Amino acid sequence: MSKKTKQLAAEIAALRQELGILRDKQAIKELQYAYGYYLDKCLYDEVVDLFADDCEVRFGGGRFIGKPGIKRLFLDRFRQRFTGGYNGPIDGFLLDHQQMQGIISVAANRKSAKARFRCFMQAGTHISQGPVAADRMQQWWEGGIYENEYVGEDGLWKIRILNYNVVFFGDFENGWAAWERTEIGRITTTWPEDPIGADELISPSPGRWPMTPVIPFHYKHPVSGKKWKPAKRKKPK
Amino acid sequence: MSKKTKQLAAEIAALRQELGILRDKQAIKELQYAYGYYLDKCLYDEVVDLFADDCEVRFGGGRFIGKPGIKRLFLDRFRQRFTGGYNGPIDGFLLDHQQMQGIISVAANRKSAKARFRCFMQAGTHISQGPVAADRMQQWWEGGIYENEYVGEDGLWKIRILNYNVVFFGDFENGWAAWERTEIGRITTTWPEDPIGADELISPSPGRWPMTPVIPFHYKHPVSGKKWKPAKRKKPK
Amino acid sequence: MSKKTKQLAAEIAALRQELGILRDKQAIKELQYAYGYYLDKCLYDEVVDLFADDCEVRFGGGRFIGKPGIKRLFLDRFRQRFTGGYNGPIDGFLLDHQQMQGIISVAANRKSAKARFRCFMQAGTHISQGPVAADRMQQWWEGGIYENEYVGEDGLWKIRILNYNVVFFGDFENGWAAWERTEIGRITTTWPEDPIGADELISPSPGRWPMTPVIPFHYKHPVSGKKWKPAKRKKPK
Repeated sequence: MSKKTKQLAAEIAALRQELGILRDKQAIKELQYAYGYYLDKCLYDEVVDLFADDCEVRFGGGRFIGKPGIKRLFLDRFRQRFTGGYNGPIDGFLLDHQQMQGIISVAANRKSAKARFRCFMQAGTHISQGPVAADRMQQWWEGGIYENEYVGEDGLWKIRILNYNVVFFGDFENGWAAWERTEIGRITTTWPEDPIGADELISPSPGRWPMTPVIPFHYKHPVSGKKWKPAKRKKPK
Repeated sequence: MSKKTKQLAAEIAALRQELGILRDKQAIKELQYAYGYYLDKCLYDEVVDLFADDCEVRFGGGRFIGKPGIKRLFLDRFRQRFTGGYNGPIDGFLLDHQQMQGIISVAANRKSAKARFRCFMQAGTHISQGPVAADRMQQWWEGGIYENEYVGEDGLWKIRILNYNVVFFGDFENGWAAWERTEIGRITTTWPEDPIGADELISPSPGRWPMTPVIPFHYKHPVSGKKWKPAKRKKPK
Repeated sequence: MSKKTKQLAAEIAALRQELGILRDKQAIKELQYAYGYYLDKCLYDEVVDLFADDCEVRFGGGRFIGKPGIKRLFLDRFRQRFTGGYNGPIDGFLLDHQQMQGIISVAANRKSAKARFRCFMQAGTHISQGPVAADRMQQWWEGGIYENEYVGEDGLWKIRILNYNVVFFGDFENGWAAWERTEIGRITTTWPEDPIGADELISPSPGRWPMTPVIPFHYKHPVSGKKWKPAKRKKPK
């Protein structure tokens, strides 16, 4: 093989790697988007199938671990609560999960990745369905941040950690400025004592709106390259 | 040509194909985003120019077919109604069409593609413009799903089928929970009897909010590879 | 070097250029997304670090020029006003800046780029923080369009011009239809007379909601290739 041919082979290998990373980013983005579209329609079996076996969901202060854990969350908790166990949408129930603003970082070996996404929700129950339970809301807005992890094998990506953090809640009538129902969506019990509880509680529990914790960024600053740290100066009262 | 050179040529061809698909996805995404930005500003001539000759728009239960059909919808129906025939925005009229969450599937021959997108709308008329007509809304929220088709030639992509499905409506005051105006945006007449009617009505007409049909996914499940099917179990009452 | 080898080298160079453009688009998108995530959390130092030295922010009818100018805007104006000078979020203050719908055009030499993005904001102050000042809003919706410029060197991209244009404002209670506070967020003074003023005022000042100017598109029509021009016909009254 000539020197020139060797050089071309090396250039091709470099392009293949760079192109592979871009394709992975696209695949991970579409995986996360698919998750949003399935959740919209209460297709919880399809949501569970997006995860790797070695998976975890962090939600509302609880950790749901492995396929048994996430099935407890999506199938036993959400599906029972939202659709009475039916795997699909029921009339008058809205739960739109917009997925957007993905910053995706793929490891050089292309076997793992981290990503930050934003979710913006429109949710609630149409009045034609009768009154909602006291621990439910008629209709609400919700914003949140994911800092997720993914695993890939030969370009097939799965969710390893889905880490959802509510940024704000607002009921449709009174908004985020008047939000007082801090108990909503909070996980406080564990399995097996609670058959739909978490495997573990996250401690300390992250602050919730109107508290405004920064969800740490998995990536470094895109220009300075610095890792983010909280300001040393105290917050004003 | 040496065996090694042949192998490099094959690797380059494979990279070109993979890169081509990624570029197509980007081009289709930007095409759909451009559509959203034009609609925002009532630039209906520019919207029509995004379509292939062999095109179709599915909207509100009607099919508008070919360039004559979609001109009837965008120019004769929407433009007359929203801006009195002016090709551009008028003061006090808002019609923002956020475009997001694209899952795009390009055929191996790179001549056709399908894509799912989400739209989220903020729309209405400022009170400075006087009272709105009884069949119009003062201000509203709207969420919808596209399942579109595109055609490409040498990397130039056009919309072939724009298939828009409202997921929810909510007026600004009372939201999606209290939505009762099921007649809004519904196409019920055909051309030429109605000069701004559809070419055909879609039958059966898809259910509308507070009904919650699943708009079928053009793609298979990204992990299991299964095509989505409705659950066999009956919905709870 | 054989003719075939020369041809392969040329094909590799073409792929490298095309792939480079796609990578630039992804990098610019993530840069803009990072900007949104930092702004959400009042991380104004981190925002400033996203800009090139030769930078400019156009906001509210003012131009803030160079690093001194944009520090005046982000650090002296916004940070003082929103968090009392603390570089990070304070309890009860929401300022979510969703970033979406990017159409990105990279120059052939890969050293500069232009991009259009959309922003959708949810903002306000929780009632637990006491009454808000008369020139502030309790909670509001805001939509806007960026038409930005970026500079790149060896794949590291920075913001050169951040050009933000509000499309609509709406307070949470009464929406965009009833918006009357046209003074909000308007820059009317210059530095050094006003220590937090702009370097220059933009003249004529762009119209504001309920006026609906088209923010010119940096890109040509994706199908027709035509540059957008306003309609010649007069708007209806």
